[in-house]
Amino acid sequence: MKCVFSAPQHKHYPESFLVNGVREKNPEMPGRIDKLLEGADDLGLEMVTPKDYGLGPIARIHTPEYLDFLQNAYKRWQRIPGAAAEITPNIHPTNRDGAYPASVVAQAGYHMADASAPITGDTWESALHSAWSAIHASELLLAGEKSAYALCRPPGHHAGADLAGGFCYLNNTAIAAQNLRRKYSSVAILDVDLHHGNGTQDIFYRRNDVLTVSLHADPIRFYPFFWGHASERGEGPGLGYNLNFPLPRGTRDDDYLAALDKALDRLAAFAPEAVVIALGLDAFESDPFAGLGVSTEGFGKIGRAIAERLPGPTVIIQEGGYLCDELGLNLASFLNGFREGGK
Amino acid sequence: MKCVFSAPQHKHYPESFLVNGVREKNPEMPGRIDKLLEGADDLGLEMVTPKDYGLGPIARIHTPEYLDFLQNAYKRWQRIPGAAAEITPNIHPTNRDGAYPASVVAQAGYHMADASAPITGDTWESALHSAWSAIHASELLLAGEKSAYALCRPPGHHAGADLAGGFCYLNNTAIAAQNLRRKYSSVAILDVDLHHGNGTQDIFYRRNDVLTVSLHADPIRFYPFFWGHASERGEGPGLGYNLNFPLPRGTRDDDYLAALDKALDRLAAFAPEAVVIALGLDAFESDPFAGLGVSTEGFGKIGRAIAERLPGPTVIIQEGGYLCDELGLNLASFLNGFREGGK
Repeated sequence: MKCVFSAPQHKHYPESFLVNGVREKNPEMPGRIDKLLEGADDLGLEMVTPKDYGLGPIARIHTPEYLDFLQNAYKRWQRIPGAAAEITPNIHPTNRDGAYPASVVAQAGYHMADASAPITGDTWESALHSAWSAIHASELLLAGEKSAYALCRPPGHHAGADLAGGFCYLNNTAIAAQNLRRKYSSVAILDVDLHHGNGTQDIFYRRNDVLTVSLHADPIRFYPFFWGHASERGEGPGLGYNLNFPLPRGTRDDDYLAALDKALDRLAAFAPEAVVIALGLDAFESDPFAGLGVSTEGFGKIGRAIAERLPGPTVIIQEGGYLCDELGLNLASFLNGFREGGK
Repeated sequence: MKCVFSAPQHKHYPESFLVNGVREKNPEMPGRIDKLLEGADDLGLEMVTPKDYGLGPIARIHTPEYLDFLQNAYKRWQRIPGAAAEITPNIHPTNRDGAYPASVVAQAGYHMADASAPITGDTWESALHSAWSAIHASELLLAGEKSAYALCRPPGHHAGADLAGGFCYLNNTAIAAQNLRRKYSSVAILDVDLHHGNGTQDIFYRRNDVLTVSLHADPIRFYPFFWGHASERGEGPGLGYNLNFPLPRGTRDDDYLAALDKALDRLAAFAPEAVVIALGLDAFESDPFAGLGVSTEGFGKIGRAIAERLPGPTVIIQEGGYLCDELGLNLASFLNGFREGGK
């Protein structure tokens, strides 16, 4: 299996995010990359650099308004006298189909669901390369490989079609899935990040060609709060094509694997031609977010179960997982299990 | 004319609000009350204290979820380790009909549209008394008086049925209008605050028994950005019952009065049985928000034009207008013009 990664993904380095009204150090740091690279290296994955795919495959998922904003907002923000060093929003629309505001402050509120995805002068470049890594990994599948891993950072699964949030700007998972649709008529996304993949869910919520399934800490008292509940099943043509497994806080390996087994039943019932795994490693028992209780060995079992039950070509997209000693080890454990499962 | 006011409206004293990513001193200060009282006193208005109206007339406008949140969120927020001294939101839903979150952090994001209406331990009491002042003024009309002034603070016109924002918590103007509906079959609201009365508009957007008209700085680059555009005309049964006049920044008396004249044409065409004036004084040329260019004499002309053209019983509800030497003078000028106009 190849590991796709691009060095400019290091550059984005937001200082802070707002939590409970207080500015705290932003945990989505470039150092995560080094830990994850160690894990990929331990496993002997071949490192490849993505090509420049331009905006094309990204613009199949994100709106032109949003892509224009992400590329150009920062220099407009800097012209505001006394503005903060990073773009953070302070006013948000309650509905999204009114007039589009001209002010960058209001556009920030429109395009940023929360205060945990600040935009710096380097954000666009890193997010673009992160998306290219995802696209490149999906291209490897289109070229005949059975599987590929994209070391995406910043992550993507909280980003909607026109919305940043939760450390995410471009939805790498959705972009990869859409790119796979060029060849495969059905694509399933399985999201095992600690947090619900609300952006991914929203992007495909009214579609029946992409099934979205997510296991995550119950959002009733956990980020992203407003999305990820079991009652969310899709809408219109997409009704029945979205499935959420909100898990009790602290869920450990056995219960996690039991829920995963049910998720895999549903995925199998979709008979997807290709699969995208949104691989967060923050379900780990010692992750700083302390939401679930998956062990390092647990990640191996998760990887193995996925590979055994989902036979199609599979791309693995890195999502969350924050700095702790075992971050690289957890990646290696997952990918090793995945290989033992037959990929 | 009587001036209705209650001393506990002084207590709410938020420290800060977030603007362009930076915490700044919150301009909606208790000192505003003293300036406004001076203005009312200069004019010889009789001071009256509102009765305790309970929650009844307020709950005709605001949802039980929201009223529960406003009353109880602060003590829940204080239990979060390391939380800020005031409730400010950091994550917001993109749609409002999903599961209602259990976490106070998420409820804050659900019920607070922006970072300029922080909740302190005193907010509820002041907002409640502010609403009671508005209710009491409307009760004076129901009892036969031609007009009344409610010195409401905190203000209300940015607050929606389940949403705080822009220094506002309870929508005093909407509560007064709804209370007037007990006797009068049609009520018109004219909002002359510098900022669009987005909460008031939203509350009555699908109704044809309450006409909402607002003159304000063009929101395309001014708070509240997402609302107040000329294209917003109401919805469903309310289509045609909302009218916005977005004015160019810096608009001075003559152009303001010309727009007001058109607004009064539309109000006259509704033939309302009673009228609510949402009286912001921040359209003043030296207001700290520096949005429009109305002079002290201009407020007199505005008051006079309103009184001359709208013959029904009229309650005047204080909205914005921030600390400057002329704040009390501007109130006196408006009310004096209003009296000269026949009320």
